[in-house]
Amino acid sequence: MSGVVQKYGGSSVANAERILNVAGRVARRRATGEPMVVVVSAMGDTTDELIALARQVTERPADREMDLLLSTGEIISCTLLAMALRERGVPARSFTGAQAGILTDRSHGRARILGVEPARLQRCLNDGEVAIVAGFQGITPETDVTTLGRGGSDTTAVALAAALGARCCEIYTDVKGVYTCDPRIEPAARKLDVISYEEMLEMASQGSRVMHPRAVELCAIHGIPILVASSLVDAPGTMIQETSEMEPSNKVRGISHDIHIAKVTVVGTPDRPGIAAAIFRRLTEAGILVDAIVQNASVHSDATDLSFTVNSDDLLRAQDALNDQVLALGCRELLTNDSLGKVSIVGTGVLNTPGYASRMFGVLADAGINIELITTSEIRITCIIEQDRVPDAVRALHAAFQLDEG
Amino acid sequence: MSGVVQKYGGSSVANAERILNVAGRVARRRATGEPMVVVVSAMGDTTDELIALARQVTERPADREMDLLLSTGEIISCTLLAMALRERGVPARSFTGAQAGILTDRSHGRARILGVEPARLQRCLNDGEVAIVAGFQGITPETDVTTLGRGGSDTTAVALAAALGARCCEIYTDVKGVYTCDPRIEPAARKLDVISYEEMLEMASQGSRVMHPRAVELCAIHGIPILVASSLVDAPGTMIQETSEMEPSNKVRGISHDIHIAKVTVVGTPDRPGIAAAIFRRLTEAGILVDAIVQNASVHSDATDLSFTVNSDDLLRAQDALNDQVLALGCRELLTNDSLGKVSIVGTGVLNTPGYASRMFGVLADAGINIELITTSEIRITCIIEQDRVPDAVRALHAAFQLDEG
Repeated sequence: MSGVVQKYGGSSVANAERILNVAGRVARRRATGEPMVVVVSAMGDTTDELIALARQVTERPADREMDLLLSTGEIISCTLLAMALRERGVPARSFTGAQAGILTDRSHGRARILGVEPARLQRCLNDGEVAIVAGFQGITPETDVTTLGRGGSDTTAVALAAALGARCCEIYTDVKGVYTCDPRIEPAARKLDVISYEEMLEMASQGSRVMHPRAVELCAIHGIPILVASSLVDAPGTMIQETSEMEPSNKVRGISHDIHIAKVTVVGTPDRPGIAAAIFRRLTEAGILVDAIVQNASVHSDATDLSFTVNSDDLLRAQDALNDQVLALGCRELLTNDSLGKVSIVGTGVLNTPGYASRMFGVLADAGINIELITTSEIRITCIIEQDRVPDAVRALHAAFQLDEG
Repeated sequence: MSGVVQKYGGSSVANAERILNVAGRVARRRATGEPMVVVVSAMGDTTDELIALARQVTERPADREMDLLLSTGEIISCTLLAMALRERGVPARSFTGAQAGILTDRSHGRARILGVEPARLQRCLNDGEVAIVAGFQGITPETDVTTLGRGGSDTTAVALAAALGARCCEIYTDVKGVYTCDPRIEPAARKLDVISYEEMLEMASQGSRVMHPRAVELCAIHGIPILVASSLVDAPGTMIQETSEMEPSNKVRGISHDIHIAKVTVVGTPDRPGIAAAIFRRLTEAGILVDAIVQNASVHSDATDLSFTVNSDDLLRAQDALNDQVLALGCRELLTNDSLGKVSIVGTGVLNTPGYASRMFGVLADAGINIELITTSEIRITCIIEQDRVPDAVRALHAAFQLDEG
């Protein structure tokens, strides 16, 4: 194909006026003659409204039914965008996830894409039409409709870009790109022109809401450059791509944060093999993503404490999953704290560059912020701290690492 | 299967409370152990709201896109009903038209069902689950989504009943059954316990809104009895079936009416072969259903007047379709009147029973109502009259034919 796949998020298609705006953008780009696939999310609050509707008939909607219900949100927005484009004289055709050939596993509510059968979209492109695809959804081998869970529409876009051999995947949203930190917290935050897949992955995993990590990861695997830009203004955005040669490394690129962190501590964990495995198997079965895990083998006793963090929305389900398990395994009790947040410094080589870690901890100490837990990766150092100190921490770190200076 | 197919209309599933009510009804029926398929329309005004949304982005929505957009309405209601049933402990599963195997032609907006592939529904029934199917929609050989047009959900229900070999098709709506005339016009109107397919077909074709004629016709062809009853009260309803032996024939069974009639007169039509064919071919191509057609070959000149009636909603499109044609064919002009209505007496043998026609015309004459046009079938006599006299005509005929007496 060698064209582009664009994705427009829910706020970009929130109402008829914005859909017409997106149609204008697509039409102008289309005038360059490049083949185009456009993936859309559901309009604004549609998904929340559908969930509320389901809750009016049952407190425990069946996953399969919920997925079919939610899939209508993206179908509505993609048909409207196709109509708006045709109104402008641009040939366009809408496709459900099933029609677009998005094949998934059977994990309703958080399905993984198994493959894409792009023949039908390819035919549409060959006919010179713009293909408009409902994001966030796919179909199982039994033709049941699934949804892809968080970051679903981004993942649809990237999967189609890979299957069609697009030269670029463009994610349009309500922000102008990837920033050194959240500009709502630190007005001096600076938009990055380029960022590497790895750095973006860490930024995304650590709370930057611009793009979902699974979509970034998929692009990295297939080597597809991603542009993140605003659908509301004409501005260059941020390019996510291989950047080993283009950017100085060993430098902090950005500060990411998240204020929805809960910590679970399993107190008095018997210090023998298999206990941690049993605990995390339970969490996996319950579909709960665990973030940081910390355990120190005790030198003084035969029991230790095991801590991990989850998104605070998942805390109740994590407790439910573990409550009986804990005593059965011989652990003493389960302690939780759901008023935590985290702040990370991200940059290639951060962990291996002497001084970054101590500088980070020093900045937080100077601001009187206590560190609950520390985790690291090759290119990231993360501190779990009190939720209400997160903005202070972001501002202090942004200043200390001179990110406003580029 | 030998179970039942039920259909619930838009007002029966208009909100969460009504969906829960329908779930209760289905659950009680289900307790008898009979296999059940339930077809639902979109909730209340959903379809109108989706049409309004489309009009916000374009005045001429493409048919294919419109169909995919509108199909979401029935998907939403069928998933909610399945959830509500599962909440009550009744195993249930929702299906889109495509998943239910409703195969149609490519006439978007008014597709005809070409066949039903019921294997998947059959599997669901064999598993002991209630199958909930989105009405009004199907899928083309290219897997494009179509809608079935007026009476679409009734037609879905009947087609499934035929394909699955159901013993009965039950249409639940906001009225208690088929009445001798519209009870909102004549409070003395009486609910019929039984009516024949043919009589119901004429009642439906002539404006009784209880059921769409195409669905009645399909049931007649397959010999499937239809029950029409209220979803809001427990009352026996009206059975539509072969009734040759059970009911006295040669009797007026009901008065139907319609107040949305427009008459088109092609003035000065050349009196030679092919003119009428050319005119009606144009209307067919534009997808306009023509009701009554009247032409009297002139004995005094080589030109005559050709009149026909259409639903008043279709008048503008009919004029658009014919405007150039009229002069090209050598006709003089097009006259229209969109303030007409019609009233019919329906009953087996009505036309062949001496006195019914003259009695009908006499009743209207006594009420001072002028007859614009008369059309008849074996079991029906219809008069086109001024729109605002329709209620008077219904009441006068209901009394004259003693329909309140049963």
